[in-house]
Amino acid sequence: MFRIASYEEFHDGQVIIQEGTHGDWIYVVEEGFVEVSKKVQGRQIVVAVLSKGEVFGELAFISGVPRTATVKAIGETTVGVIDKDYFTKEYNKLPADFRQIFTTVSVRLKKMTDVFIANYSGKE
Amino acid sequence: MFRIASYEEFHDGQVIIQEGTHGDWIYVVEEGFVEVSKKVQGRQIVVAVLSKGEVFGELAFISGVPRTATVKAIGETTVGVIDKDYFTKEYNKLPADFRQIFTTVSVRLKKMTDVFIANYSGKE
Repeated sequence: MFRIASYEEFHDGQVIIQEGTHGDWIYVVEEGFVEVSKKVQGRQIVVAVLSKGEVFGELAFISGVPRTATVKAIGETTVGVIDKDYFTKEYNKLPADFRQIFTTVSVRLKKMTDVFIANYSGKE
Repeated sequence: MFRIASYEEFHDGQVIIQEGTHGDWIYVVEEGFVEVSKKVQGRQIVVAVLSKGEVFGELAFISGVPRTATVKAIGETTVGVIDKDYFTKEYNKLPADFRQIFTTVSVRLKKMTDVFIANYSGKE
């Protein structure tokens, strides 16, 4: 599995990633749940809830953009911070086609989220 | 890059993948564009437009579900059908953590699309 650099614990409602900030750590939910949300016209819109084994923060790693969403703990939550150097080394060893497919799917997830948000806010 | 089993050409509006059918071929856009849409209350809602190098159909491969969207050619379009046996062999060689992250992101894309559709239809 992933090589985990450290484990971090969060209480209910604590922010793990803040939308718009810079950072490219990738996380995996170890215990509990996290809520992924985006700010739309002053409101936080929840776009996903992730549970044990699910990974988040990968988009900033892949595409170098600022954090595209806020991630908060739901209840007592433990996340593993994936060892970035090790991950990068392993990632670069992947066959080019798998890196491409992974990038494609990540970018499509971002686009789909943007479409959802645009549609959502457009209807308010 | 991908090992392509065959190339297929489509005219404007021709269906490449039909939502709800079974099949787990993965495609890559070689030339032109494709439109990804889902049926909501009798209407086709476009959820993405993909261009050269972008991959589609990967979700059915990964999770074994029926096709979750319809994909149509926009204009004259050529797609490559990825050699499934080779892809499967290479996929199974990936480190388990990358298979997991890839699955996570694919499933999140599906969930996000579902949320978009639910929100969309809920507001009609």
